Amino acid sequence: MAATGDEQRPISTLLIFAAMDSEALPIVEHFKLSPDDGSLFLLGVPWIRYHGYYKDLNIYVIYPGKDRDFGINSVGTVPASLVTYATIQALKPDLLINAGTAGGFKVKGASIFDVFLVSDLAFHDRRIPIPGPDKYGLGRRQSYPTPNLVKELNIKVCKLSTGDLLDMSPQDETCILANDATIVDMEGAAVAYVSNLMRVPAIFIKAVSNFVDGETSIHEEFEQNLQATVVVLQKVVAQVVEFINGKCLSEL
Amino acid sequence: MAATGDEQRPISTLLIFAAMDSEALPIVEHFKLSPDDGSLFLLGVPWIRYHGYYKDLNIYVIYPGKDRDFGINSVGTVPASLVTYATIQALKPDLLINAGTAGGFKVKGASIFDVFLVSDLAFHDRRIPIPGPDKYGLGRRQSYPTPNLVKELNIKVCKLSTGDLLDMSPQDETCILANDATIVDMEGAAVAYVSNLMRVPAIFIKAVSNFVDGETSIHEEFEQNLQATVVVLQKVVAQVVEFINGKCLSEL
Repeated sequence: MAATGDEQRPISTLLIFAAMDSEALPIVEHFKLSPDDGSLFLLGVPWIRYHGYYKDLNIYVIYPGKDRDFGINSVGTVPASLVTYATIQALKPDLLINAGTAGGFKVKGASIFDVFLVSDLAFHDRRIPIPGPDKYGLGRRQSYPTPNLVKELNIKVCKLSTGDLLDMSPQDETCILANDATIVDMEGAAVAYVSNLMRVPAIFIKAVSNFVDGETSIHEEFEQNLQATVVVLQKVVAQVVEFINGKCLSEL
Repeated sequence: MAATGDEQRPISTLLIFAAMDSEALPIVEHFKLSPDDGSLFLLGVPWIRYHGYYKDLNIYVIYPGKDRDFGINSVGTVPASLVTYATIQALKPDLLINAGTAGGFKVKGASIFDVFLVSDLAFHDRRIPIPGPDKYGLGRRQSYPTPNLVKELNIKVCKLSTGDLLDMSPQDETCILANDATIVDMEGAAVAYVSNLMRVPAIFIKAVSNFVDGETSIHEEFEQNLQATVVVLQKVVAQVVEFINGKCLSEL
């Protein structure tokens, strides 16, 4: 997706997008990043940005913050798209990483605390049953290929399906299975859409906090495992950043 | 939503967002607007903008254009949010109008070719069944109040529910009814979210092209009625713009 010239120079500016403070802050702490209160964003938006340096890298971590009206983390595709768009426009990063938690399918071999690198992303809740628009609704896109990273860190690779809902209707489940997804989240395919629109290479690191086809309630399992999941997520993000440091896109 | 000072001076810059070319172009033709190929947006995005003057108003019409990968109109909440965000950021309009087609509920009294002004907007496909996040997911917001406009033009007023899917699961239908919606669309609540985030007053004009609870297929009825629906939509948009001209926000 990046121009060939960009692929041959070392990655310098790295943008890490997370949906929630609980996912972002362990990464912020690990890299000792500082809060940035500058005027990068419009006055009044709740979006939060951290910045710092690590070896040869200029690292930004962003997340959408709490909704002003509802006081809840601004999860889902719309805030993720807006924050990613505004930050790419302002910072022009060489590489975007979307790091977050995800739900996993037992039947597809996922386990709690597994961390995946995502190869393909699509939506499962934008069903438009008309030939042509149906494919637009699914919005299947691929992440930037990183064969050396996968091999070196021995990370599992899978497909991801994105939807704005936490419950799963039979129609959603059919579409998730048609997307051949091992994991589901609420932002990935929207971040992939924006990165593609703005021609910034993106990779996706997702840690499984709960099953979507298990016996326990999704929300209870998510709450119970969240703290431990963001720790394994942060560890893999740290390994990935270490691997990226000093390399060009074409070496990933 | 606008500062009190802004409410007391005549509306000058008017931004009209539509999701599809077929909805936007009759409005563009009516006001004799010209295509704008300037560098308002990032290079390479498919977003389309028209601009012109009508009486005391500086009018912009924008729509997201065709998806680069799929060649389909970029309908739905994510492109609508991005285009609205980027355009508000660049143009700082005094008022945003989202004009478009919608599906109507027979059981709620909607008829084909009815044109509504929307009072309340919410999502029906962002179900998060946890107290707190559930309300965030619904994302209910109100449009800018326009009592004089409603009275003068004798426009029907109703609530709107937004979702990214054209099929309707039983869960969606339950949520649409809980939202007390007479009409549904694929962008409104997302545009309301962005206008609220950026503190720009917004109103929503929606023309019914098809029933969602009728006997005919939604898509067939939509295709069959689209041309006639965008004509009635354009006529009401023209009346609304005529009413707005020379007035302050507080006079709407």
